Amino acid sequence: MHFPRTRTHTSWDRGLAPIAELAPGQELTVETVEASGGQLSASAVAADVARMDFARVNPVTGPFALPQARPGDALVVEILEMSLGEWGWTACIPGFGLLAEDFPSAHLRISKIADGHAELLPGLRVPVLPMLGTIGVAPPEAGPHGMVPPRRWGGNMDIRQLGPGARLVLPVGVDGALLSLGDAHAAMGDGEVAGTGVETDAVVRLRVDLVQGAAPRSPLLETDARAQRTGRALATTGIGPDLMVATRDAVRALVDEIARRTGLAPEDAYLLASVAADLKISEVVDVPNWVVTAHLSVDLLS
Amino acid sequence: MHFPRTRTHTSWDRGLAPIAELAPGQELTVETVEASGGQLSASAVAADVARMDFARVNPVTGPFALPQARPGDALVVEILEMSLGEWGWTACIPGFGLLAEDFPSAHLRISKIADGHAELLPGLRVPVLPMLGTIGVAPPEAGPHGMVPPRRWGGNMDIRQLGPGARLVLPVGVDGALLSLGDAHAAMGDGEVAGTGVETDAVVRLRVDLVQGAAPRSPLLETDARAQRTGRALATTGIGPDLMVATRDAVRALVDEIARRTGLAPEDAYLLASVAADLKISEVVDVPNWVVTAHLSVDLLS
Repeated sequence: MHFPRTRTHTSWDRGLAPIAELAPGQELTVETVEASGGQLSASAVAADVARMDFARVNPVTGPFALPQARPGDALVVEILEMSLGEWGWTACIPGFGLLAEDFPSAHLRISKIADGHAELLPGLRVPVLPMLGTIGVAPPEAGPHGMVPPRRWGGNMDIRQLGPGARLVLPVGVDGALLSLGDAHAAMGDGEVAGTGVETDAVVRLRVDLVQGAAPRSPLLETDARAQRTGRALATTGIGPDLMVATRDAVRALVDEIARRTGLAPEDAYLLASVAADLKISEVVDVPNWVVTAHLSVDLLS
Repeated sequence: MHFPRTRTHTSWDRGLAPIAELAPGQELTVETVEASGGQLSASAVAADVARMDFARVNPVTGPFALPQARPGDALVVEILEMSLGEWGWTACIPGFGLLAEDFPSAHLRISKIADGHAELLPGLRVPVLPMLGTIGVAPPEAGPHGMVPPRRWGGNMDIRQLGPGARLVLPVGVDGALLSLGDAHAAMGDGEVAGTGVETDAVVRLRVDLVQGAAPRSPLLETDARAQRTGRALATTGIGPDLMVATRDAVRALVDEIARRTGLAPEDAYLLASVAADLKISEVVDVPNWVVTAHLSVDLLS
């Protein structure tokens, strides 16, 4: 099953008609379009950024229905492979980004993507680490809901480690789940501070599965070994408008997962997190919700 | 020059008499005592944690004066080597830690430290990554100042990457600088969420140097290659009571450093940070000040 990057939508909405039905265990290949939705090209200039229509940004391909999925189930998505476009864009967008007040003007760089690097400027080659900025399911509340903020249902989480080899667990909010994905990056730092990574087209091969009644409180993932100092890691999320609350939520979720998987007492799970888990600010630009992740090597969970 | 772990103090104070004078470029060996200051032993139990006198915690060895240092200079400290004690402690301390409300009772685990691992519980072996929780200089304001919160002058920053191979740059606040260090950890996660790592005695070999008039706005460091997914990295800090402000401060400092070291325009430095720098919550427990760090591979700075 192969889905072209023309089958996109630009808001989350439980009322959208699915573009296909998937069975648990199914593999599919999904083309995604870069985050401007075709408004920027490889020859774009800063003035094109200033002219962008925000209603068209961050398109996602989908939605895909899993007819058996029910609210309260867990949707498991394995990212098997990503191939990227030959160019990407990175911009300061006026009014957007962590330091929007310091950088009020539009600014744009086009990277050539080749040989495992994105060349942001002549000679400045950033290692490619492909990832999906946006992947999520339809919220249960009637839509439309904007594409920019991530939510309990995933979406624009911009978690750097969500690339090939990662396994994401999302809570299902509506019958059929309604999965969509997009916003691929050739490279992005934890935080995505200017609001953009190296934004590019991608072809994503993934596998979906379903676990009845296992919805996590907030999305969680297992990351590829190459994405972390510690090798493969379990990562939990805290998503919301307050970084401290998001930090507490991510750590609470990690403590719960450690206790559940290992049988450790909660107090010992908390101590293990204190000595071995890493806290990352995964995104701090997708207004109004930020994402904090807590990562623990899976070696410590066995 | 070798200094025993009996030469400690438990508050920052510009009025303290230095225990030794150092010359720029000098190497020294400093013993540090674990963070309870001798109140806990390898046979301690949870009740001993509840009885701890907080006025005695987090002792640092020092202060060391560099007679030539003046306010506005940069003090450069290279951590050359750390050897650790044979045991360490990790605790929930009532009223302390990110989830203090969830974990109101004292809880204690003693780890055996051997063969590159700290054994937090029987069979649960956490890889050792030695680091210094506390290193700083005297604040210019008359003291005493408590040991728990980090400040612009360093102190209890609890930055996981501040171990052997790291190079720390601190602003000098008073004549002579008055450097002190302590609070070694055999292992700690970014965040130190329960408020403690694997707290242990250490012997630290370090080299100090001075750069006239080069005080950073906030401490910055270069981390050892082994501490990061990206290899050796430059890390800037944001220190304060609001995570969002600390995040902005760390990113602003990184953008400034990138621009200064590479000659990139600030806008391009900001884009480089967005696609390649990682944001970590280094500590979120040392009330009332948290530390956010922004890390960029030094390969991207040359």
